[in-house]
Amino acid sequence: MAPSPLVQLPTVVDWTADGRGVRVLDQRALPGDTRWLECRTVADAVDAIRTLAVRGAPAIGVAGAMALACAAEAAAQVHAERAAFEAAVADAAVPLRAARPTAVNLAWAIDRLRRLAAATPGAPPAVARALREEATRIRDEDRAMCDAIGRHGLAFVADGARVLTHCNAGALATAGIGTALAPVYAAVAAGRAVSVLADETRPLWQGARLTAWELAQVGVPVTVCTDGMAASLMRRGRVDLVLVGADRICANGDVVNKIGTYAVALAAHAH
Amino acid sequence: MAPSPLVQLPTVVDWTADGRGVRVLDQRALPGDTRWLECRTVADAVDAIRTLAVRGAPAIGVAGAMALACAAEAAAQVHAERAAFEAAVADAAVPLRAARPTAVNLAWAIDRLRRLAAATPGAPPAVARALREEATRIRDEDRAMCDAIGRHGLAFVADGARVLTHCNAGALATAGIGTALAPVYAAVAAGRAVSVLADETRPLWQGARLTAWELAQVGVPVTVCTDGMAASLMRRGRVDLVLVGADRICANGDVVNKIGTYAVALAAHAH
Repeated sequence: MAPSPLVQLPTVVDWTADGRGVRVLDQRALPGDTRWLECRTVADAVDAIRTLAVRGAPAIGVAGAMALACAAEAAAQVHAERAAFEAAVADAAVPLRAARPTAVNLAWAIDRLRRLAAATPGAPPAVARALREEATRIRDEDRAMCDAIGRHGLAFVADGARVLTHCNAGALATAGIGTALAPVYAAVAAGRAVSVLADETRPLWQGARLTAWELAQVGVPVTVCTDGMAASLMRRGRVDLVLVGADRICANGDVVNKIGTYAVALAAHAH
Repeated sequence: MAPSPLVQLPTVVDWTADGRGVRVLDQRALPGDTRWLECRTVADAVDAIRTLAVRGAPAIGVAGAMALACAAEAAAQVHAERAAFEAAVADAAVPLRAARPTAVNLAWAIDRLRRLAAATPGAPPAVARALREEATRIRDEDRAMCDAIGRHGLAFVADGARVLTHCNAGALATAGIGTALAPVYAAVAAGRAVSVLADETRPLWQGARLTAWELAQVGVPVTVCTDGMAASLMRRGRVDLVLVGADRICANGDVVNKIGTYAVALAAHAH
Protein backbone atom coordinates (compact mmCIF):
# COMPACT_ATOMS: atom_id res chain seq x y z
CA MET A 1 0.00 0.00 0.00
CA ALA A 2 1.02 3.61 -0.47
CA PRO A 3 3.11 5.16 2.27
CA SER A 4 1.45 7.58 4.63
CA PRO A 5 1.07 11.04 3.11
CA LEU A 6 2.65 12.57 6.19
CA VAL A 7 6.07 11.00 6.24
CA GLN A 8 8.03 8.21 4.53
CA LEU A 9 8.60 5.39 6.97
CA PRO A 10 8.72 1.63 6.45
CA THR A 11 5.51 -0.29 7.19
CA VAL A 12 6.76 -2.65 9.85
CA VAL A 13 3.91 -5.17 9.59
CA ASP A 14 2.16 -6.22 6.39
CA TRP A 15 1.35 -9.22 4.19
CA THR A 16 4.27 -10.99 2.54
CA ALA A 17 4.57 -10.46 -1.22
CA ASP A 18 2.72 -13.73 -1.94
CA GLY A 19 0.05 -12.93 0.64
CA ARG A 20 0.56 -16.22 2.47
CA GLY A 21 2.35 -14.85 5.52
CA VAL A 22 3.08 -11.80 7.66
CA ARG A 23 6.17 -9.73 6.92
CA VAL A 24 7.61 -7.84 9.91
CA LEU A 25 10.68 -5.68 10.40
CA ASP A 26 12.78 -7.60 12.94
CA GLN A 27 13.09 -5.02 15.71
CA ARG A 28 15.43 -7.22 17.75
CA ALA A 29 18.16 -6.40 15.20
CA LEU A 30 17.65 -2.61 15.20
CA PRO A 31 19.40 -0.25 15.07
CA GLY A 32 22.35 -2.32 13.82
CA ASP A 33 20.58 -4.30 11.09
CA THR A 34 17.47 -3.73 9.01
CA ARG A 35 16.26 -7.28 8.63
CA TRP A 36 12.79 -8.59 7.67
CA LEU A 37 11.06 -11.73 8.93
CA GLU A 38 8.36 -13.70 7.12
CA CYS A 39 5.99 -15.45 9.54
CA ARG A 40 4.25 -18.28 7.66
CA THR A 41 2.85 -20.28 10.57
CA VAL A 42 1.13 -19.51 13.87
CA ALA A 43 4.32 -20.65 15.63
CA ASP A 44 6.37 -18.18 13.56
CA ALA A 45 4.05 -15.32 14.50
CA VAL A 46 3.89 -16.29 18.18
CA ASP A 47 7.68 -16.42 18.25
CA ALA A 48 7.99 -13.02 16.53
CA ILE A 49 5.59 -11.47 19.07
CA ARG A 50 7.09 -13.20 22.12
CA THR A 51 10.67 -12.30 21.25
CA LEU A 52 9.69 -8.69 20.40
CA ALA A 53 10.67 -8.97 16.72
CA VAL A 54 7.33 -7.22 16.27
CA ARG A 55 6.27 -5.03 19.19
CA GLY A 56 4.10 -2.01 19.86
CA ALA A 57 0.47 -2.70 20.74
CA PRO A 58 -1.05 -1.67 17.35
CA ALA A 59 1.57 -3.53 15.29
CA ILE A 60 1.10 -6.65 17.39
CA GLY A 61 -2.65 -6.47 16.83
CA VAL A 62 -2.20 -6.24 13.05
CA ALA A 63 0.39 -9.06 13.05
CA GLY A 64 -1.88 -11.30 15.14
CA ALA A 65 -4.90 -10.68 12.88
CA MET A 66 -2.87 -11.38 9.75
CA ALA A 67 -1.37 -14.53 11.25
CA LEU A 68 -4.84 -15.82 12.22
CA ALA A 69 -6.14 -15.10 8.70
CA CYS A 70 -3.23 -17.06 7.22
CA ALA A 71 -3.96 -19.93 9.62
CA ALA A 72 -7.63 -19.86 8.55
CA GLU A 73 -6.67 -20.09 4.88
CA ALA A 74 -4.43 -23.05 5.63
CA ALA A 75 -7.26 -24.66 7.63
CA ALA A 76 -9.74 -24.07 4.77
CA GLN A 77 -7.49 -26.11 2.47
CA VAL A 78 -7.62 -29.18 4.72
CA HIS A 79 -11.06 -28.92 6.33
CA ALA A 80 -14.08 -28.89 4.00
CA GLU A 81 -16.36 -29.25 7.06
CA ARG A 82 -17.24 -26.00 8.73
CA ALA A 83 -17.02 -27.41 12.30
CA ALA A 84 -13.52 -28.84 11.80
CA PHE A 85 -12.42 -25.58 10.16
CA GLU A 86 -13.75 -23.49 13.05
CA ALA A 87 -12.00 -25.77 15.57
CA ALA A 88 -8.72 -25.31 13.68
CA VAL A 89 -9.16 -21.51 13.70
CA ALA A 90 -9.95 -21.63 17.42
CA ASP A 91 -6.80 -23.69 18.05
CA ALA A 92 -4.71 -21.14 16.15
CA ALA A 93 -6.29 -18.24 18.03
CA VAL A 94 -5.34 -19.48 21.50
CA PRO A 95 -1.51 -19.19 21.29
CA LEU A 96 -1.71 -16.02 19.18
CA ARG A 97 -4.00 -14.33 21.70
CA ALA A 98 -1.68 -15.28 24.58
CA ALA A 99 1.59 -14.32 22.89
CA ARG A 100 1.72 -10.87 24.52
CA PRO A 101 -0.57 -10.16 27.46
CA THR A 102 0.23 -6.45 27.86
CA ALA A 103 -0.88 -5.20 24.43
CA VAL A 104 -4.68 -5.07 24.42
CA ASN A 105 -4.77 -4.78 20.61
CA LEU A 106 -3.71 -8.40 20.19
CA ALA A 107 -6.60 -9.97 22.12
CA TRP A 108 -8.93 -7.38 20.60
CA ALA A 109 -7.90 -8.20 17.01
CA ILE A 110 -8.04 -11.96 17.53
CA ASP A 111 -11.49 -11.69 19.12
CA ARG A 112 -12.68 -9.46 16.28
CA LEU A 113 -11.67 -12.05 13.69
CA ARG A 114 -13.21 -14.89 15.67
CA ARG A 115 -16.52 -13.03 15.99
CA LEU A 116 -16.47 -12.37 12.24
CA ALA A 117 -15.76 -16.05 11.51
CA ALA A 118 -18.74 -17.08 13.65
CA ALA A 119 -20.97 -14.53 11.93
CA THR A 120 -19.88 -15.28 8.35
CA PRO A 121 -22.03 -17.84 6.50
CA GLY A 122 -20.70 -20.21 3.84
CA ALA A 123 -17.93 -22.71 3.33
CA PRO A 124 -14.47 -22.44 4.94
CA PRO A 125 -12.80 -20.74 1.92
CA ALA A 126 -15.34 -17.92 2.03
CA VAL A 127 -14.83 -17.47 5.78
CA ALA A 128 -11.04 -17.46 5.36
CA ARG A 129 -11.40 -14.79 2.64
CA ALA A 130 -13.51 -12.69 4.97
CA LEU A 131 -10.86 -13.01 7.71
CA ARG A 132 -8.12 -11.91 5.30
CA GLU A 133 -10.17 -8.86 4.31
CA GLU A 134 -10.79 -8.10 7.98
CA ALA A 135 -7.08 -8.32 8.82
CA THR A 136 -6.33 -5.93 5.96
CA ARG A 137 -9.04 -3.64 7.32
CA ILE A 138 -7.45 -3.71 10.80
CA ARG A 139 -4.13 -2.71 9.21
CA ASP A 140 -5.77 0.11 7.24
CA GLU A 141 -7.78 1.32 10.22
CA ASP A 142 -4.62 1.37 12.30
CA ARG A 143 -2.88 3.46 9.67
CA ALA A 144 -5.86 5.82 9.48
CA MET A 145 -5.94 6.11 13.29
CA CYS A 146 -2.27 7.01 13.32
CA ASP A 147 -2.87 9.72 10.75
CA ALA A 148 -5.86 10.99 12.75
CA ILE A 149 -3.79 11.09 15.95
CA GLY A 150 -1.24 13.11 14.00
CA ARG A 151 -3.84 15.56 12.76
CA HIS A 152 -5.51 15.97 16.15
CA GLY A 153 -2.22 16.18 18.04
CA LEU A 154 -0.70 18.70 15.64
CA ALA A 155 -2.14 21.61 17.63
CA PHE A 156 -0.03 20.61 20.65
CA VAL A 157 3.28 20.60 18.79
CA ALA A 158 4.33 24.21 18.23
CA ASP A 159 7.15 25.27 15.92
CA GLY A 160 10.37 24.65 17.81
CA ALA A 161 8.76 22.21 20.26
CA ARG A 162 11.06 19.95 22.28
CA VAL A 163 9.14 16.73 22.81
CA LEU A 164 10.08 14.09 25.36
CA THR A 165 8.88 10.54 24.77
CA HIS A 166 9.30 7.21 26.54
CA CYS A 167 9.64 3.81 24.89
CA ASN A 168 8.63 3.61 21.22
CA ALA A 169 5.16 4.60 20.11
CA GLY A 170 6.19 5.55 16.60
CA ALA A 171 5.99 4.01 13.15
CA LEU A 172 7.80 0.94 14.45
CA ALA A 173 4.92 0.27 16.85
CA THR A 174 2.09 0.50 14.33
CA ALA A 175 1.13 -0.14 10.73
CA GLY A 176 1.26 3.63 10.15
CA ILE A 177 3.18 6.65 11.42
CA GLY A 178 2.81 5.79 15.09
CA THR A 179 0.60 6.91 17.93
CA ALA A 180 2.50 9.16 20.36
CA LEU A 181 4.95 10.17 17.63
CA ALA A 182 2.23 10.82 15.03
CA PRO A 183 1.82 14.48 16.11
CA VAL A 184 5.60 14.89 15.79
CA TYR A 185 5.54 13.59 12.23
CA ALA A 186 2.48 15.69 11.47
CA ALA A 187 4.30 18.78 12.76
CA VAL A 188 7.36 17.96 10.67
CA ALA A 189 5.13 17.49 7.61
CA ALA A 190 3.59 20.89 8.40
CA GLY A 191 7.05 22.46 8.24
CA ARG A 192 7.59 22.91 11.96
CA ALA A 193 10.99 22.46 13.57
CA VAL A 194 10.56 19.74 16.17
CA SER A 195 13.19 17.95 18.23
CA VAL A 196 12.73 14.87 20.36
CA LEU A 197 14.29 13.71 23.63
CA ALA A 198 14.00 9.93 23.69
CA ASP A 199 14.16 8.20 27.08
CA GLU A 200 16.45 5.23 26.52
CA THR A 201 13.74 3.09 28.18
CA ARG A 202 15.28 0.43 30.33
CA PRO A 203 15.42 -2.52 30.44
CA LEU A 204 14.96 -3.15 26.71
CA TRP A 205 16.16 0.16 25.24
CA GLN A 206 13.16 0.76 22.96
CA GLY A 207 13.87 4.49 23.08
CA ALA A 208 17.60 4.27 22.41
CA ARG A 209 17.30 1.49 19.82
CA LEU A 210 13.97 2.17 18.12
CA THR A 211 12.67 5.69 18.67
CA ALA A 212 16.06 7.24 17.98
CA TRP A 213 16.46 5.04 14.87
CA GLU A 214 13.10 5.82 13.30
CA LEU A 215 13.33 9.56 13.95
CA ALA A 216 16.85 9.63 12.53
CA GLN A 217 15.61 7.77 9.42
CA VAL A 218 13.42 10.72 8.51
CA GLY A 219 15.77 13.44 9.76
CA VAL A 220 14.00 14.50 12.95
CA PRO A 221 16.61 15.72 15.48
CA VAL A 222 16.63 13.27 18.37
CA THR A 223 18.70 13.00 21.56
CA VAL A 224 18.68 9.90 23.74
CA CYS A 225 18.61 10.53 27.49
CA THR A 226 18.65 8.12 30.41
CA ASP A 227 15.23 7.54 31.97
CA GLY A 228 16.38 9.28 35.15
CA MET A 229 17.21 12.47 33.23
CA ALA A 230 13.66 13.22 32.11
CA ALA A 231 12.57 14.90 35.36
CA SER A 232 15.74 17.00 35.54
CA LEU A 233 15.35 18.10 31.92
CA MET A 234 11.80 19.22 32.68
CA ARG A 235 13.04 21.04 35.77
CA ARG A 236 15.51 22.95 33.61
CA GLY A 237 12.80 23.96 31.15
CA ARG A 238 14.17 21.86 28.32
CA VAL A 239 10.96 19.95 27.59
CA ASP A 240 7.86 21.58 26.09
CA LEU A 241 5.69 18.52 25.72
CA VAL A 242 5.62 14.88 26.77
CA LEU A 243 4.04 12.34 24.42
CA VAL A 244 3.81 8.66 25.39
CA GLY A 245 1.97 5.66 24.00
CA ALA A 246 -0.51 3.42 25.77
CA ASP A 247 -0.80 -0.34 25.89
CA ARG A 248 -4.29 0.17 27.27
CA ILE A 249 -6.53 3.11 28.16
CA CYS A 250 -9.10 2.39 30.85
CA ALA A 251 -12.68 3.64 30.86
CA ASN A 252 -11.77 6.10 33.64
CA GLY A 253 -8.89 7.54 31.62
CA ASP A 254 -6.08 5.65 33.35
CA VAL A 255 -3.31 4.71 30.95
CA VAL A 256 -1.28 1.50 31.08
CA ASN A 257 2.12 1.73 29.43
CA LYS A 258 5.75 0.66 29.56
CA ILE A 259 7.53 0.69 32.92
CA GLY A 260 8.91 4.16 33.58
CA THR A 261 5.93 5.98 32.05
CA TYR A 262 4.48 6.64 35.49
CA ALA A 263 7.70 8.33 36.63
CA VAL A 264 7.61 10.53 33.52
CA ALA A 265 3.96 11.39 34.21
CA LEU A 266 4.74 12.39 37.82
CA ALA A 267 7.57 14.62 36.62
CA ALA A 268 5.44 16.19 33.89
CA HIS A 269 2.69 16.81 36.45
CA ALA A 270 5.18 18.46 38.83
CA HIS A 271 6.39 20.79 36.05
CA MET B 1 42.71 0.39 61.12
CA ALA B 2 39.97 -1.71 62.77
CA PRO B 3 36.85 -2.35 60.75
CA SER B 4 33.72 -0.44 61.63
CA PRO B 5 31.92 -1.94 64.63
CA LEU B 6 28.69 -1.99 62.68
CA VAL B 7 29.49 -4.18 59.73
CA GLN B 8 32.45 -5.83 58.03
CA LEU B 9 33.13 -4.12 54.74
CA PRO B 10 36.39 -3.38 52.94
CA THR B 11 37.84 0.09 53.44
CA VAL B 12 37.94 1.28 49.84
CA VAL B 13 40.43 4.11 50.37
CA ASP B 14 43.41 4.05 52.73
CA TRP B 15 47.19 4.35 52.88
CA THR B 16 49.23 1.68 51.10
CA ALA B 17 51.04 -0.78 53.40
CA ASP B 18 54.27 1.26 53.15
CA GLY B 19 52.42 4.52 53.72
CA ARG B 20 53.85 6.09 50.56
CA GLY B 21 50.71 5.97 48.44
CA VAL B 22 46.93 5.66 48.40
CA ARG B 23 45.35 2.23 48.08
CA VAL B 24 41.89 2.17 46.51
CA LEU B 25 39.51 -0.59 45.51
CA ASP B 26 39.23 -0.28 41.71
CA GLN B 27 35.49 0.23 41.31
CA ARG B 28 35.71 0.15 37.52
CA ALA B 29 36.25 -3.61 37.76
CA LEU B 30 33.33 -4.34 40.11
CA PRO B 31 31.34 -6.49 40.41
CA GLY B 32 33.35 -8.86 38.24
CA ASP B 33 36.78 -8.38 39.82
CA THR B 34 37.97 -7.23 43.24
CA ARG B 35 41.17 -5.45 42.27
CA TRP B 36 43.19 -2.89 44.24
CA LEU B 37 45.11 0.09 42.85
CA GLU B 38 48.08 1.79 44.49
CA CYS B 39 48.32 5.49 43.58
CA ARG B 40 51.89 6.65 44.20
CA THR B 41 51.88 9.93 42.28
CA VAL B 42 49.51 12.85 41.83
CA ALA B 43 48.96 11.66 38.25
CA ASP B 44 47.98 8.18 39.53
CA ALA B 45 45.46 9.68 41.94
CA VAL B 46 44.02 12.10 39.38
CA ASP B 47 43.60 9.21 36.95
CA ALA B 48 41.93 7.03 39.61
CA ILE B 49 39.48 9.83 40.43
CA ARG B 50 38.83 10.84 36.81
CA THR B 51 38.17 7.30 35.63
CA LEU B 52 35.98 6.53 38.67
CA ALA B 53 38.28 3.84 40.05
CA VAL B 54 37.59 5.69 43.29
CA ARG B 55 34.24 7.49 43.44
CA GLY B 56 31.72 8.68 46.00
CA ALA B 57 32.20 12.18 47.34
CA PRO B 58 33.61 11.21 50.77
CA ALA B 59 35.99 8.57 49.38
CA ILE B 60 37.24 11.02 46.75
CA GLY B 61 37.93 13.60 49.45
CA VAL B 62 39.96 11.11 51.49
CA ALA B 63 41.85 9.91 48.41
CA GLY B 64 42.63 13.49 47.37
CA ALA B 65 43.88 14.43 50.83
CA MET B 66 46.08 11.34 51.06
CA ALA B 67 47.46 11.91 47.56
CA LEU B 68 48.34 15.53 48.42
CA ALA B 69 50.03 14.42 51.65
CA CYS B 70 52.12 11.91 49.67
CA ALA B 71 53.03 14.65 47.18
CA ALA B 72 54.06 16.91 50.09
CA GLU B 73 56.34 14.22 51.49
CA ALA B 74 57.96 13.74 48.08
CA ALA B 75 58.37 17.52 47.78
CA ALA B 76 59.91 17.73 51.25
CA GLN B 77 62.63 15.32 50.13
CA VAL B 78 63.72 17.55 47.22
CA HIS B 79 62.96 21.06 48.52
CA ALA B 80 64.69 22.14 51.71
CA GLU B 81 63.45 25.71 51.16
CA ARG B 82 59.98 26.33 52.47
CA ALA B 83 58.94 28.54 49.53
CA ALA B 84 59.91 25.95 46.91
CA PHE B 85 58.20 23.24 48.97
CA GLU B 86 54.99 25.25 49.20
CA ALA B 87 55.06 25.92 45.46
CA ALA B 88 55.39 22.17 44.79
CA VAL B 89 52.45 21.41 47.10
CA ALA B 90 50.40 24.09 45.36
CA ASP B 91 51.27 22.59 41.98
CA ALA B 92 50.13 19.17 43.16
CA ALA B 93 46.91 20.57 44.61
CA VAL B 94 45.69 22.08 41.34
CA PRO B 95 45.11 18.89 39.29
CA LEU B 96 43.91 16.97 42.35
CA ARG B 97 41.35 19.63 43.20
CA ALA B 98 40.05 19.67 39.60
CA ALA B 99 39.92 15.90 39.11
CA ARG B 100 36.20 15.67 39.94
CA PRO B 101 34.16 18.86 40.02
CA THR B 102 30.89 17.36 41.31
CA ALA B 103 32.10 16.00 44.65
CA VAL B 104 32.48 18.93 47.04
CA ASN B 105 34.57 16.83 49.46
CA LEU B 106 37.54 16.83 47.11
CA ALA B 107 37.98 20.60 46.91
CA TRP B 108 37.13 20.85 50.61
CA ALA B 109 39.81 18.31 51.62
CA ILE B 110 42.49 19.82 49.38
CA ASP B 111 41.74 23.32 50.69
CA ARG B 112 41.85 22.04 54.27
CA LEU B 113 45.31 20.58 53.76
CA ARG B 114 46.56 23.71 52.02
CA ARG B 115 45.32 25.92 54.85
CA LEU B 116 47.04 23.65 57.34
CA ALA B 117 50.29 23.78 55.36
CA ALA B 118 50.20 27.58 55.38
CA ALA B 119 49.50 27.65 59.14
CA THR B 120 52.11 25.06 60.12
CA PRO B 121 55.49 26.49 61.11
CA GLY B 122 58.78 24.68 60.56
CA ALA B 123 60.73 22.96 57.84
CA PRO B 124 59.12 21.04 54.92
CA PRO B 125 59.38 17.58 56.57
CA ALA B 126 57.41 18.81 59.58
CA VAL B 127 54.72 20.31 57.34
CA ALA B 128 54.52 17.12 55.31
CA ARG B 129 54.10 15.12 58.51
CA ALA B 130 51.29 17.44 59.59
CA LEU B 131 49.57 16.95 56.23
CA ARG B 132 49.82 13.17 56.55
CA GLU B 133 48.26 13.33 60.01
CA GLU B 134 45.54 15.61 58.67
CA ALA B 135 44.75 13.22 55.79
CA THR B 136 44.49 10.37 58.30
CA ARG B 137 42.22 12.57 60.41
CA ILE B 138 39.97 13.25 57.38
CA ARG B 139 39.72 9.47 56.83
CA ASP B 140 38.89 8.86 60.48
CA GLU B 141 36.40 11.71 60.62
CA ASP B 142 34.71 10.36 57.51
CA ARG B 143 34.45 6.95 59.12
CA ALA B 144 33.05 8.48 62.32
CA MET B 145 30.55 10.54 60.32
CA CYS B 146 29.36 7.40 58.54
CA ASP B 147 28.84 5.67 61.87
CA ALA B 148 27.02 8.74 63.22
CA ILE B 149 24.75 8.84 60.15
CA GLY B 150 24.01 5.18 60.82
CA ARG B 151 23.15 5.82 64.46
CA HIS B 152 21.01 8.86 63.72
CA GLY B 153 19.29 7.24 60.74
CA LEU B 154 18.56 4.00 62.56
CA ALA B 155 15.26 5.34 63.88
CA PHE B 156 13.96 5.64 60.31
CA VAL B 157 14.67 2.03 59.37
CA ALA B 158 12.04 -0.17 61.01
CA ASP B 159 12.27 -3.95 61.23
CA GLY B 160 11.21 -5.27 57.81
CA ALA B 161 11.84 -1.94 56.06
CA ARG B 162 12.11 -1.98 52.28
CA VAL B 163 14.58 0.77 51.38
CA LEU B 164 14.99 2.21 47.89
CA THR B 165 18.29 3.87 47.02
CA HIS B 166 19.78 5.49 43.94
CA CYS B 167 23.43 5.33 42.85
CA ASN B 168 25.92 4.19 45.50
CA ALA B 169 26.25 6.00 48.78
CA GLY B 170 27.48 3.01 50.71
CA ALA B 171 30.79 1.73 52.00
CA LEU B 172 32.20 1.93 48.48
CA ALA B 173 31.64 5.70 48.48
CA THR B 174 33.35 6.46 51.79
CA ALA B 175 36.14 5.42 54.11
CA GLY B 176 33.50 3.90 56.41
CA ILE B 177 30.12 2.19 56.14
CA GLY B 178 28.62 4.74 53.79
CA THR B 179 26.31 7.70 54.07
CA ALA B 180 22.83 6.87 52.73
CA LEU B 181 23.38 3.17 53.37
CA ALA B 182 24.77 3.69 56.89
CA PRO B 183 21.30 3.52 58.50
CA VAL B 184 20.69 0.27 56.60
CA TYR B 185 23.88 -1.25 58.01
CA ALA B 186 23.05 0.11 61.45
CA ALA B 187 19.61 -1.52 61.27
CA VAL B 188 21.15 -4.81 60.16
CA ALA B 189 23.63 -4.61 63.05
CA ALA B 190 20.67 -3.97 65.35
CA GLY B 191 19.13 -7.23 64.22
CA ARG B 192 16.44 -5.76 61.98
CA ALA B 193 15.41 -7.42 58.73
CA VAL B 194 16.04 -4.85 55.99
CA SER B 195 15.87 -5.26 52.24
CA VAL B 196 17.06 -2.82 49.60
CA LEU B 197 15.81 -1.92 46.13
CA ALA B 198 18.80 -0.54 44.22
CA ASP B 199 18.08 1.68 41.22
CA GLU B 200 20.48 0.44 38.54
CA THR B 201 21.48 4.12 38.05
CA ARG B 202 22.08 4.85 34.42
CA PRO B 203 24.32 5.69 32.66
CA LEU B 204 27.13 4.21 34.79
CA TRP B 205 25.27 1.48 36.70
CA GLN B 206 26.55 2.42 40.18
CA GLY B 207 23.45 0.83 41.69
CA ALA B 208 23.56 -2.39 39.71
CA ARG B 209 27.35 -2.75 39.89
CA LEU B 210 28.27 -1.27 43.26
CA THR B 211 25.32 -0.98 45.65
CA ALA B 212 24.10 -4.49 44.83
CA TRP B 213 27.65 -5.84 45.20
CA GLU B 214 28.41 -4.30 48.56
CA LEU B 215 25.04 -5.24 50.09
CA ALA B 216 25.41 -8.79 48.81
CA GLN B 217 28.90 -8.96 50.35
CA VAL B 218 27.41 -8.62 53.81
CA GLY B 219 24.23 -10.59 53.14
CA VAL B 220 21.68 -7.77 52.94
CA PRO B 221 18.87 -8.80 50.54
CA VAL B 222 19.04 -6.51 47.52
CA THR B 223 17.06 -6.31 44.28
CA VAL B 224 18.20 -4.19 41.34
CA CYS B 225 15.45 -2.28 39.56
CA THR B 226 15.58 -0.02 36.53
CA ASP B 227 15.50 3.68 37.37
CA GLY B 228 12.08 4.00 35.77
CA MET B 229 10.63 1.37 38.12
CA ALA B 230 11.17 3.33 41.34
CA ALA B 231 8.01 5.44 41.02
CA SER B 232 5.85 2.44 40.14
CA LEU B 233 7.23 0.45 43.06
CA MET B 234 6.33 3.33 45.39
CA ARG B 235 2.87 3.51 43.82
CA ARG B 236 2.37 -0.18 44.64
CA GLY B 237 3.39 0.29 48.25
CA ARG B 238 6.59 -1.70 47.92
CA VAL B 239 8.93 1.01 49.25
CA ASP B 240 8.93 2.13 52.88
CA LEU B 241 11.83 4.55 52.77
CA VAL B 242 14.08 6.25 50.22
CA LEU B 243 17.69 6.95 51.16
CA VAL B 244 20.03 8.74 48.74
CA GLY B 245 23.44 10.32 49.01
CA ALA B 246 24.44 13.90 48.28
CA ASP B 247 27.37 15.29 46.35
CA ARG B 248 26.58 18.63 47.96
CA ILE B 249 23.99 20.00 50.40
CA CYS B 250 23.26 23.71 49.98
CA ALA B 251 22.71 26.15 52.83
CA ASN B 252 19.00 26.24 52.00
CA GLY B 253 18.72 22.46 52.21
CA ASP B 254 18.81 21.74 48.47
CA VAL B 255 20.64 18.53 47.67
CA VAL B 256 22.86 17.96 44.63
CA ASN B 257 23.25 14.32 43.65
CA LYS B 258 23.55 11.84 40.78
CA ILE B 259 21.28 12.28 37.77
CA GLY B 260 17.98 10.54 38.45
CA THR B 261 17.85 11.50 42.11
CA TYR B 262 15.41 14.32 41.36
CA ALA B 263 13.01 11.90 39.66
CA VAL B 264 13.18 9.64 42.72
CA ALA B 265 12.53 12.63 44.99
CA LEU B 266 9.47 13.70 42.97
CA ALA B 267 8.09 10.16 43.15
CA ALA B 268 8.77 9.89 46.90
CA HIS B 269 7.08 13.25 47.42
CA ALA B 270 4.04 12.10 45.43
CA HIS B 271 3.75 8.95 47.56
